[in-house]
Amino acid sequence: MASSSAFRIGIAGLGTVGAGVIRILHDHADLIAARAGRRIEVVAVSARDRKKERGVDLSGIVWADQAENLSTYEGLDAVVELVGGADGVAYGLVHDALLGGRAVVTANKALLAHHGHGLALLSESKGAPLLYEAAVAGGIPIIKTLREGFAANEIRAVYGILNGTCNYILTTMRETGRDFSDVLAEAQEKGYAEADPSFDVDGVDAAHKLCILSALSFGIKPDLDALKIEGIRAITASDIAYAQELGYRIKLLGIARNIDGKIAQMVEPCLVPEGSPIGAVEGVFNAVYVDGDFVDTGLAVGRGAGAGPTASAVVADLIDLARGQGKAPVFGIPATSMKEAMVADTGDLASRFYLRLVVLDKPGVLADIAAVMRDHNVSMEAVIQRGRDPDKPVSIVITSHRVRQADIHAAITRIAAMPFMTDKPCLLRIEKF
Amino acid sequence: MASSSAFRIGIAGLGTVGAGVIRILHDHADLIAARAGRRIEVVAVSARDRKKERGVDLSGIVWADQAENLSTYEGLDAVVELVGGADGVAYGLVHDALLGGRAVVTANKALLAHHGHGLALLSESKGAPLLYEAAVAGGIPIIKTLREGFAANEIRAVYGILNGTCNYILTTMRETGRDFSDVLAEAQEKGYAEADPSFDVDGVDAAHKLCILSALSFGIKPDLDALKIEGIRAITASDIAYAQELGYRIKLLGIARNIDGKIAQMVEPCLVPEGSPIGAVEGVFNAVYVDGDFVDTGLAVGRGAGAGPTASAVVADLIDLARGQGKAPVFGIPATSMKEAMVADTGDLASRFYLRLVVLDKPGVLADIAAVMRDHNVSMEAVIQRGRDPDKPVSIVITSHRVRQADIHAAITRIAAMPFMTDKPCLLRIEKF
Repeated sequence: MASSSAFRIGIAGLGTVGAGVIRILHDHADLIAARAGRRIEVVAVSARDRKKERGVDLSGIVWADQAENLSTYEGLDAVVELVGGADGVAYGLVHDALLGGRAVVTANKALLAHHGHGLALLSESKGAPLLYEAAVAGGIPIIKTLREGFAANEIRAVYGILNGTCNYILTTMRETGRDFSDVLAEAQEKGYAEADPSFDVDGVDAAHKLCILSALSFGIKPDLDALKIEGIRAITASDIAYAQELGYRIKLLGIARNIDGKIAQMVEPCLVPEGSPIGAVEGVFNAVYVDGDFVDTGLAVGRGAGAGPTASAVVADLIDLARGQGKAPVFGIPATSMKEAMVADTGDLASRFYLRLVVLDKPGVLADIAAVMRDHNVSMEAVIQRGRDPDKPVSIVITSHRVRQADIHAAITRIAAMPFMTDKPCLLRIEKF
Repeated sequence: MASSSAFRIGIAGLGTVGAGVIRILHDHADLIAARAGRRIEVVAVSARDRKKERGVDLSGIVWADQAENLSTYEGLDAVVELVGGADGVAYGLVHDALLGGRAVVTANKALLAHHGHGLALLSESKGAPLLYEAAVAGGIPIIKTLREGFAANEIRAVYGILNGTCNYILTTMRETGRDFSDVLAEAQEKGYAEADPSFDVDGVDAAHKLCILSALSFGIKPDLDALKIEGIRAITASDIAYAQELGYRIKLLGIARNIDGKIAQMVEPCLVPEGSPIGAVEGVFNAVYVDGDFVDTGLAVGRGAGAGPTASAVVADLIDLARGQGKAPVFGIPATSMKEAMVADTGDLASRFYLRLVVLDKPGVLADIAAVMRDHNVSMEAVIQRGRDPDKPVSIVITSHRVRQADIHAAITRIAAMPFMTDKPCLLRIEKF
């Protein structure tokens, strides 16, 4: 299985992940050579700033003036794209490399969510592998698990905690009782959240990842427009406290389900049981459940981001290539067979729900709410109203039994228009685990 | 990536897993052909009883008189070994198939624990892949994760719940408050435990699996003699109740750690925090943690056994082979480079411990115990003694701060010999998660 010739790579982008890749290849050179059957050698790199101190030895490595040059730089066995962004340099580099028959390893979820199908067609027509383990939950080998490990199954659902920043914020809110904006500001100071946090907290990052997992699970083209996306800005400290009182934690989940051949895809905050394995996934950790028809349910938990885990995933892909693997189709089935996602109507889906209403504390309010619920076949399981404050806003928290989503939405639309309502209702799905 | 010729296999052993493999290949024939690039066709089978109703269609499949015949049966691309047992037919079939250059897929953990290194040498010298995802925790792709997904890491530790029968018994004991022997008898009636349960409850099955995971993680030859193995027979209903009172659950863990290049391997019941992801892994589920130096800690949870998950793992290996993958070394590094396990001295390992002593309830007993603990540098964190019953046996439960294992063992050896002791002490490690 050994081969004497080194596997030669070029790396575009030398941020923390790029430097991490170089560090792993250096620190574990012998171990990786044993595992891959040959050495993996960084021949060329490109990055905006040549002078920046990266803490890794770059001597003897060629600097390419433009990242795109690596697509055709002579003698490379693979290109690693760590530039980022759905378009521009990253797209050009990956596209051109594949077009020239060169293998690509990327950590770029936005690129795959936006252009995954086109790039998969190109990869397969050119026989140039396109690997992207690092694009989703770097510390969890979920791409390999779906494409290879669970390949014997029809996947019924894939869902989980896909954004570490949101999970860190929600965990800290629970632990400290503080509000969203306060915890977000702290996370930004600590570097756990970006200056512009919307990519994370509005669910866009999780949506990119879910899109990729759906493509792999269901053989559908990645399509962000097929997703319903809701972030965590509306979650209050009181929601988290109520959830805890009811035995739940609030997690931002990405959920994709095959419902009679149509696919429901959503990113939304949900209540999960405190005592479940996913309820215990806290801080920056990610978690992915896969439900296959023969394997049943599996869960994987690991770090979602960070230089070490992401670089580990990139190097795993490189070892696969150096071993002569990487031959599975990009999204598990040939790109030419991938279908447009048929969007499932989620109205008929039945779930339990958590509902928080802020109402003026007047006699008869609860009776009015209960009547609307009854009219729409929404059966209430528990109602909590802490404290009394006549004619002032108070919170009423309701949990429902399993009800049709369309029914509870219809009920809430009517309730939201009632005169005693002082704020937007907060409706969260309660997920079983 | 497509190839028009079918991938032809023979299956030895048609128990529930063998029948499950045939069912998956039948039910998902088109999906698997799309994923593998070619159809997977069962050409020949062997099993003790031809007449048995297995609920799957065997028409058109050749019956081999002897399982061993499949090693040389003409035109096969791979043999699936589901006979079981470390030696005899299973060993002969796998050995002869590899010797003839034929790929093998097996679910046989005993075979790999006993003969893994020799078979890996043969596999690699003949260029005949030996895949065994189904041998450890069928519902968790842990072999692939260690061999490929985390290949960029030096593995620091691998540990987890590796036996579903024990986890089912411990879970049921906790939920019902019943004793080990009572729950075991029920598990046997229900078919969750064998008539001779020692393979499971004495930790042998978990040891086989840990042996394989250690080989993959640390590049050492599988060696059962290098393991310390303790089962769950000594765990009482009261241990489980005390653990719960202290915020823990009791799980049978397999643990393998790299300690300065030496490997500590043990199978033993441990206390794990109730609120941790692994604490929430209940019933027949398995869970495996991997700690790698760049990826940090990852956890995978899934069903450990059963026809569906095990057959799913077998078929995943077949899809890999049909795709032209399966080229990584059997245990992640070339078998010629694998070393004998150097056994770490666990005496210096520091842990917290749970200790239950059954003593005659007399004045001064606790003072005597505390004095011995002090003499051996064992710092006690909590002491629980429920109820008083002068001159009768009562339980004292002690938890320690982090102490050297050798120290607490020395203390317990002295305490066990004291005149007030009426029963063997029960010492369990408290594992952090």
